[in-house]
Amino acid sequence: MSETLDWILKRRSIRVYADAPVTDEQVETLLRAAMAAPSANDVRPWAFVVVRDAERREALAKIHQWSHMCAKAPVVIVVLGNPEASLHWVEDCSAATENLLLAAAGLNLGAVWVAIYPHADCEAGVRQLLEIPERFRVLCLVPVGQPAETKSPRTRYEASKVHVETFGNRD
Amino acid sequence: MSETLDWILKRRSIRVYADAPVTDEQVETLLRAAMAAPSANDVRPWAFVVVRDAERREALAKIHQWSHMCAKAPVVIVVLGNPEASLHWVEDCSAATENLLLAAAGLNLGAVWVAIYPHADCEAGVRQLLEIPERFRVLCLVPVGQPAETKSPRTRYEASKVHVETFGNRD
Repeated sequence: MSETLDWILKRRSIRVYADAPVTDEQVETLLRAAMAAPSANDVRPWAFVVVRDAERREALAKIHQWSHMCAKAPVVIVVLGNPEASLHWVEDCSAATENLLLAAAGLNLGAVWVAIYPHADCEAGVRQLLEIPERFRVLCLVPVGQPAETKSPRTRYEASKVHVETFGNRD
Repeated sequence: MSETLDWILKRRSIRVYADAPVTDEQVETLLRAAMAAPSANDVRPWAFVVVRDAERREALAKIHQWSHMCAKAPVVIVVLGNPEASLHWVEDCSAATENLLLAAAGLNLGAVWVAIYPHADCEAGVRQLLEIPERFRVLCLVPVGQPAETKSPRTRYEASKVHVETFGNRD
């Protein structure tokens, strides 16, 4: 078991990437992991845009205060959700994003979740750049690359956030 | 690598449980995994209620059309989020829930995500039962037990949901 947990703890937000490629096969593996996430009523309200073009990545890097990593990562995976398809699109697409990040860690790639939703200005910028139809929302950007920073595995476990039987009770 | 993906694909929604315990140590492992999820600005807007009491689980089983599994699972982990703490509480708590489900699969436990948010009636029922303060929302219930059904690993990968460079482009 400890292997399982180790692997979850190994996923860290990696924002610095080496000048080295991420293969199409690796990207497909990440997307296979993402789409293995559960979704309410099995609706799978997600879609993904895989961006490799340098100019587009430069533009994504300027979309948001915290999206500058998109310029240096060889690939950015953009996670979309369809609210018309499901009330639970944020949950489902978030679970898919977490699977993607964990699979990246499993491949010894570095990746990070850059939130776009619910910031309307950022979302409009991504929508225009990637020609995303109105029915889809832009949940997040995930730049992926070969890691050029090292972070130790960790959890942010806090016993104070665990309640027993009712909210007022602690162990 | 294939190990990593295999393990993500192994997570399935398990709704039938054997009459066998889940230990406190296992629950702590699940919560350590959950709290290893990323959160926007490292705010960690989550909290968890661990419910073992049979009467409470019976009540949770009646809260929702799809929550009946709570009666038979020896433990139900309830995932809460604090919107006052973060705009991104649904995303963060969803990533934490996915980590929890993956850790359960890693422990050879069975678990399933029972959505509560944004169903106001269900949420009110859980809130009253577990004495949850108004500032927290109830994202979901996760019944956990020893699995008494077997499901094969799988992804729901669909190439049609992958777009290249812009939304209109496919491979």
